[in-house]
Amino acid sequence: MNILISDILTVLPEGPETCRVYIRDGIIESVSSAPDGFSADKTISGAGKLLIPGLVNAHTHAAMTLFRNCADDLLFNDWLFGRIMPMEDKLTGDDCYWGTMLAIMEMIRTGTTAFIDMYYFTDHCVRAIVESGIRAVYTRGMAGDAACAEEKLRSVLEEYGNWKDSEKISFMLAPHAPYTCDEGFQREVAAEAKRQGLPINTHIAESLAEIETIRANYGCTPVELLDRNGLLRDTTVAAHCVHLTDSDIEILARRGVHVVTNPVSNLKLANGVAPVPKLRNAGVKVALGTDGASSNNSLNMFRELAVLSLIHKGVNHDAQAISAREGFSIATRNGAMAMGLVNTGEIKTGNIADLVILDLNNPNMQPLNDPVAALAYSAYGSEVETVIVGGEVVMENKEFLTIDAERVSFEVGRICDRIGLHLE
Amino acid sequence: MNILISDILTVLPEGPETCRVYIRDGIIESVSSAPDGFSADKTISGAGKLLIPGLVNAHTHAAMTLFRNCADDLLFNDWLFGRIMPMEDKLTGDDCYWGTMLAIMEMIRTGTTAFIDMYYFTDHCVRAIVESGIRAVYTRGMAGDAACAEEKLRSVLEEYGNWKDSEKISFMLAPHAPYTCDEGFQREVAAEAKRQGLPINTHIAESLAEIETIRANYGCTPVELLDRNGLLRDTTVAAHCVHLTDSDIEILARRGVHVVTNPVSNLKLANGVAPVPKLRNAGVKVALGTDGASSNNSLNMFRELAVLSLIHKGVNHDAQAISAREGFSIATRNGAMAMGLVNTGEIKTGNIADLVILDLNNPNMQPLNDPVAALAYSAYGSEVETVIVGGEVVMENKEFLTIDAERVSFEVGRICDRIGLHLE
Repeated sequence: MNILISDILTVLPEGPETCRVYIRDGIIESVSSAPDGFSADKTISGAGKLLIPGLVNAHTHAAMTLFRNCADDLLFNDWLFGRIMPMEDKLTGDDCYWGTMLAIMEMIRTGTTAFIDMYYFTDHCVRAIVESGIRAVYTRGMAGDAACAEEKLRSVLEEYGNWKDSEKISFMLAPHAPYTCDEGFQREVAAEAKRQGLPINTHIAESLAEIETIRANYGCTPVELLDRNGLLRDTTVAAHCVHLTDSDIEILARRGVHVVTNPVSNLKLANGVAPVPKLRNAGVKVALGTDGASSNNSLNMFRELAVLSLIHKGVNHDAQAISAREGFSIATRNGAMAMGLVNTGEIKTGNIADLVILDLNNPNMQPLNDPVAALAYSAYGSEVETVIVGGEVVMENKEFLTIDAERVSFEVGRICDRIGLHLE
Repeated sequence: MNILISDILTVLPEGPETCRVYIRDGIIESVSSAPDGFSADKTISGAGKLLIPGLVNAHTHAAMTLFRNCADDLLFNDWLFGRIMPMEDKLTGDDCYWGTMLAIMEMIRTGTTAFIDMYYFTDHCVRAIVESGIRAVYTRGMAGDAACAEEKLRSVLEEYGNWKDSEKISFMLAPHAPYTCDEGFQREVAAEAKRQGLPINTHIAESLAEIETIRANYGCTPVELLDRNGLLRDTTVAAHCVHLTDSDIEILARRGVHVVTNPVSNLKLANGVAPVPKLRNAGVKVALGTDGASSNNSLNMFRELAVLSLIHKGVNHDAQAISAREGFSIATRNGAMAMGLVNTGEIKTGNIADLVILDLNNPNMQPLNDPVAALAYSAYGSEVETVIVGGEVVMENKEFLTIDAERVSFEVGRICDRIGLHLE
């Protein structure tokens, strides 16, 4: 299918410019003149719109959208052990399918075209991803000790194998965190990842309690622990990284780890503020994620981008700590790189067409003035009108084309009634 | 006009409940059974909706919406003296009319029914407010020394007098800040405010530079300075209050000052985080505001509420620092109190009908679970569908009923072209 987006203000890597964008077989073939023999099957008018690369949510737990707004204003342990885990115990694979679909609806609605997921019930979560047409890296969370590592890895790899022919999805091994996987487990996962050529997705240094636990058990930091067990490589994705020593930052830079910062979740669970400017200055690649809806409570990457761009200014007393341009790049290109994709995250010839069109006819986008500042500071996410993933239109004029939104609402309501989530 | 809102999930002071809301002549006459002889001129269906009291934006500079997204990622002095003030010098009264109207569009669109404004060109700004049907306190910013105080006060009072018969608007005297008004000016304003029975609206302790300036010039803190000049009373509204001593907090509590916190603006301009939990614990009344769009860059009180509820958790390492309930109360009832209104800001019999209806049929509002947590943490602001101010429907199904949105866009574009704001 060939798509032409007619004269549209476009955020190119070098800055905003009015372009014509020609998409052939899922690839951006030109951002200026018509390629030879291009005949559009579909033309989208760009008048009054803004075209951007799709946002990349580089860390979430999609199915946890089922737990939205039901475990708030709680201390971390009450949140995790008192609310989240007892609810997770009740989840079935089907529940996770619907929870993942609801998450994808929110992400598409707010301009996210790709995400890195970590959850359970691989087949059900991946089925939702594949049916929706969004792009994703799926990672099945694993925890345990050396004794169970072989069996867990075998089972996860078998699950992944079922989906090896799906085009928009790839996989990583996901040892959950240094405090839920013992050293033997970590080493087994590192060895298997190497054998299979699979990247790693994990959580590191989210809370002060984690720092204390790892220090007490191993006499080192979480970063040092994972590093000595071979889990930190240039394809590794490490969420949170809130509490780091200077030496940790140096290790993350040297290993080429992709750090995914989750500012809203880190604030909401009172974990603090990750040292993003320091990481950036040390040459660490930083991407952005929402974390799960149980600690955010939204998967809106525009809000995440705003908070990212704001928080580091405020806490570092530096109005230039993270600029709108840098934040936008973190939310797009850096996320694509964390997913292992080099040909998306920017609008340029030859890249995959993961594209988002925003309607500028909203009071908060007027006057637009600087479009990138508008994306970082004045957009809500709800301006997103049309979303294209790999050349497939998955939402057009706010209508989902691949998802039965009414059915998802109905099923989510039924699940919440069953597991007793409705709080009023 | 009598309005009935049929069975609708409603955030009452005591919690969410499904209600029928009967409005007669701008007043909430009942939230349960039909009052005697009530006949509805208009019925709004509440199915699938959420009814809340209108949000109160207790500190903004509405017309500065014209400067949206055009002075970002700048150090404070470059921002104020290098960008904002040179642009302000070019503004006419008509520009301020259109800028104020655009601000009101964004506020209504995101569920704000009342705001406290501080700007110049009183007649033009107030005309926009009155025509739009929104509720506001208008305050004309004043700066200077004792020599010019009498003339400035005379002129401001004359401007205010032109609008004394308008129902939804009231006025305060607005000495801009301790660093732009000298002691003599402050005392003259305090005396005139007392004579006229007018409250005070001012900025206090926004930046560290201000603290240093006041200390160098007067040997005290900004709070101590305004207090000794009689400006701190129980009707005084003080924006920002980021940098306070314990003694400042004690003074603000003792005087009964309404502090308006502006978390997004304070972060964006790198001023820091106001000690809201400490203020609250000391018994200071705290309200919430967006500040102007030139330092936010939006007037969306839902985003402001989210950042308020998040930031204090994160920087104080306390997941219960400001709960969703407290944040929502700060964004509604406390704002109304700062405006001097005791009969709005909550949905109850006898209160003024300043009401907002949200559409729950959005992915981020599903599952809803706890409605107040949803308002604080998962709502974007764009769910707002219908807005009622004093019984007048000003937006219905996202259509403005009192504002010509197309005309506002056109005029704002023209103004920005003229004063050279378009940056691309």
